[in-house]
Amino acid sequence: MSLTAEILSIGTELLLGDIINTDAQVISQGLSELGINLFYTSVVGDNPERIKKSVELAKSRADLLITTGGLGPTYDDITKETVSACYSRPLVRHEPTIERLKEYFAKRNITLTENNYSQAMLPEGCDVLVNDWGTAPGVALEADGKMVIMLPGPPSECGPMWTERAMPWLRSKSDACLVSRTIRVVGLGESPMEAMLRPIIEKMTNPTVAPYAKVGECLLRVTAKAPTHEEAFAMTEPVVKDMCERLGDVVYGVDVDSLEARVVELMTEKKLTLVTAESCTGGLVSQRITSVPGASEIYLGGGVTYSNEMKTRLLGVPAELIKEHGAVSSEVAAAMAKGARERFGADVAIALSGVAGPSESEGKPMGLVYIGLSTKDGEVVRKCQFGRSGGRERVRSNAATTALDMVRRAVSGLPTEW
Amino acid sequence: MSLTAEILSIGTELLLGDIINTDAQVISQGLSELGINLFYTSVVGDNPERIKKSVELAKSRADLLITTGGLGPTYDDITKETVSACYSRPLVRHEPTIERLKEYFAKRNITLTENNYSQAMLPEGCDVLVNDWGTAPGVALEADGKMVIMLPGPPSECGPMWTERAMPWLRSKSDACLVSRTIRVVGLGESPMEAMLRPIIEKMTNPTVAPYAKVGECLLRVTAKAPTHEEAFAMTEPVVKDMCERLGDVVYGVDVDSLEARVVELMTEKKLTLVTAESCTGGLVSQRITSVPGASEIYLGGGVTYSNEMKTRLLGVPAELIKEHGAVSSEVAAAMAKGARERFGADVAIALSGVAGPSESEGKPMGLVYIGLSTKDGEVVRKCQFGRSGGRERVRSNAATTALDMVRRAVSGLPTEW
Repeated sequence: MSLTAEILSIGTELLLGDIINTDAQVISQGLSELGINLFYTSVVGDNPERIKKSVELAKSRADLLITTGGLGPTYDDITKETVSACYSRPLVRHEPTIERLKEYFAKRNITLTENNYSQAMLPEGCDVLVNDWGTAPGVALEADGKMVIMLPGPPSECGPMWTERAMPWLRSKSDACLVSRTIRVVGLGESPMEAMLRPIIEKMTNPTVAPYAKVGECLLRVTAKAPTHEEAFAMTEPVVKDMCERLGDVVYGVDVDSLEARVVELMTEKKLTLVTAESCTGGLVSQRITSVPGASEIYLGGGVTYSNEMKTRLLGVPAELIKEHGAVSSEVAAAMAKGARERFGADVAIALSGVAGPSESEGKPMGLVYIGLSTKDGEVVRKCQFGRSGGRERVRSNAATTALDMVRRAVSGLPTEW
Repeated sequence: MSLTAEILSIGTELLLGDIINTDAQVISQGLSELGINLFYTSVVGDNPERIKKSVELAKSRADLLITTGGLGPTYDDITKETVSACYSRPLVRHEPTIERLKEYFAKRNITLTENNYSQAMLPEGCDVLVNDWGTAPGVALEADGKMVIMLPGPPSECGPMWTERAMPWLRSKSDACLVSRTIRVVGLGESPMEAMLRPIIEKMTNPTVAPYAKVGECLLRVTAKAPTHEEAFAMTEPVVKDMCERLGDVVYGVDVDSLEARVVELMTEKKLTLVTAESCTGGLVSQRITSVPGASEIYLGGGVTYSNEMKTRLLGVPAELIKEHGAVSSEVAAAMAKGARERFGADVAIALSGVAGPSESEGKPMGLVYIGLSTKDGEVVRKCQFGRSGGRERVRSNAATTALDMVRRAVSGLPTEW
C-alpha cells in the first residue's frame, strides 16, 4: 500500500505573490519519484493559529506531512513550535546543532546572537536533517502513527535538504526501492505520444510508464519497484529500451537534464564546435546553451543580429538578399548560418530569423520562424509556424527548442527535415 | 472591513511537480493590489471528492474563492460541476458562449466536437468572464453570501483573464477604489531600503507603503483607497514623489514592467542605439532586452563571445591583452565594450566577462564579473563580486541586471560607478 503525503508551505511572502513556490514543485517531483501519492499542497502565512489548523487537517488526511519555511531564528519563524505541538512533542536543545552553529559563525567571523540558539531547539525524539547549505537544521519525525518532515524555506537550502536528506530518510523507512527513469522527447506532442503508447502503457503494473507534457517537449517516466535499487534499475532497462525503440529518433535522451545539456554532451563526445546567429530569439539559444556547465567545450559564441545591418556586418549576409526576400526568409536564414559558420570558424552553425510578435512584421505573421543549419555538408532551412496564443515568449522558446533539436539531429546523423 | 480570499488550484499535473503554479502567484499579486487578504492557497488533483472537500473548506473560512484549472472540454475538467454543486447552482447552457465557440472553431477550420459544448455549461445566474485568450470562459458568481471566481488553468489564459476580467469584476463589487503604484528600485537591497523608510512607512495608513524584494531588485508599493479611481490615484501622487526623492537614483521607474523595458523606453526617447558583448552571461542580456516588444527601435544586436578567439575575431580584443590580463579582467571588459561599440556602430555598448561558475576559472573566483560600458565619452568598467549561493544561474542573472542598470545610468546621465 502506498503512502499519501501533503505539502504545507509556510510563509506570508508566498501569499503576497512576491516569490513563487518552487519548493513545492521540487518536493512534488521527488514524491512522484518515490511513488508517494500527493493529494494536496497548501500555503499558509506566518500565523500560529492558521498553521495549527493546516497541520491538523494534513494530519487527519495524509500519512506524511512535509513543511517548508519558518525554521530560521527570527520571531516569525514559528514552524517547529507550532508543528511539534500538534504532535505533542516538546522542543529540546540539540547540542550537536549548537556546535555546528558556533563553528558556522566563527568561520565567518559573525557574532552568534541569542536568537540563533532557537534554531537548535528541535522536537524530542526526532531525526535531525543536517543542513550543509545554511544554518537551520531540518527535522524528520515519527509521531502519532504519522511522519513529519520540516525543511527550510529558501530554495537554495530546501532543494538539497530534500534530495540529500529527506528523500534518503524516506527511502530508509520503506521496505521497497523505487527507481525512476526519464525518457525525454522533443518533436512529438504529448497527445500523439500517449495515443501511440496507451495500449501498452495501460497493461503495465511494475514497471509503470507515464507520459508528461513539458514546455516544448514531453517525457515518459518509467518507474520500477523492487527490494533493492539494483533490481529495480534492472527492471526498468528492457522497458526503457522498448519505449525508446517505439518512439524512435524523437527521443533525445534518457535521464538527461535538458535538450541543451544533451547537445553539449553529444558535441563534446564528437569534438565538434557550435556557433549561433540569432535574430528573433535575441540570444535565447546561446543563453540556454551557456546555462550548461562545461558548454565552453563546444560553444564558441555567436551573433545576436537583431537589425538588418548587423546581419550584413557580422555575418556577411548580402544587403540585397535581405532586400529581395526580407529578413524573415529561408534565404536569409541559410545565409546567416553559413556566414556564422565560416566567419566564426565552427563545425556547426544554427541561425534563426522570424517574427516573435506581438504583431506581424514585413507582412509576415507572428510565429513564422526560419531556422537555418550550416555544416560542412551545406545549409538546410526549416520553416516553422509556431502558435500565437502563448505570446512572444512562447514563440521564442519554441523556436529555440526547435533550433537546439536541429543541432542534435545534425550531429547525431539524423534527418534535420521531417 | 476587508475581504478574505482563498485560491484553489485544480490539476493533477501540479501535484506531480511537472509544472509550477505561476497562476497562484499572479493572482496573489493581484489580490494584494486589491487590498484583499489571502490566508490560504491550495492545490488539489482532478478528483471530484477532494475538490468538493477543498471547496467546502474554503467556503467555510473565506469570503472569496478563486479556482484555477479544470474548465476545458475533456473528461477530467470537472471544476464547474463540482464547484457549482457546492453552491447549489445547476449548470445551464450559455448561448452566447456556444456562438463564440462556433466562431472560434470556424475561423480555424476545426470541427467543433460535442465535448466542446460542455464549456458553455455555466452556473445559473453567474457573470460570464469572456475568454479572449482561449476557448473556456471563466465564471464569477455570488452565492450563499460568498463570491466565487473560476479561471482557466493555462497561464497564458489565466493571467489575462485575471487582470482583464476578474479583477475589474472584483473592483465593481467594492464601494471603494484601490490604486496601487509601484516604485522599482535596483542597486539597493530590501533591508537597507526598509531600514531607511520604516519610520515614515509605519505611520502611513492611506496611502500605505510596503517594500518587497524581487530577484536582483526590490520595489515599493504605494496603495491608496478612495471612492473613485481618480481620487485614489491623486492620493498616491505626493507619496510616490516623496518616496522617489528619498530613494534617489536607485529608482529606475514608477509603474514600469522591468528594468529592460525601462532601458528600451529611455533609449527610444533619446534616440540612442545599444549593442552588447557577452561572455559569462552567454546572451542573457540580449535575451532580456529583446523580450521587450519594440526593442528593435534601440537594440542593434551583439556578440556572444564565449571563447577567447571569438573575443578577438568579433570584437577585435587583442589576443595579447587576453593573454596578459586573462579574459576575466577590467582591461578585457573595456576592450570588448569599445570593440562592440565601434565595430557594430552604436551609441552605447555593454560588455560582460566573468566567472559564472559552478567552479573558479583562470584562478578567479566564481561570481567575479567585470562589466564594461562604452560611450562616446570612453569606457568605464565595474568590478562585481556576486554571491555564490544561488549558483551559476543567479550569478548570470545578477550580472545581467547590473549591466542593464549601468546602461540606464549612463543614458540618464547618472554616475555609472558608485
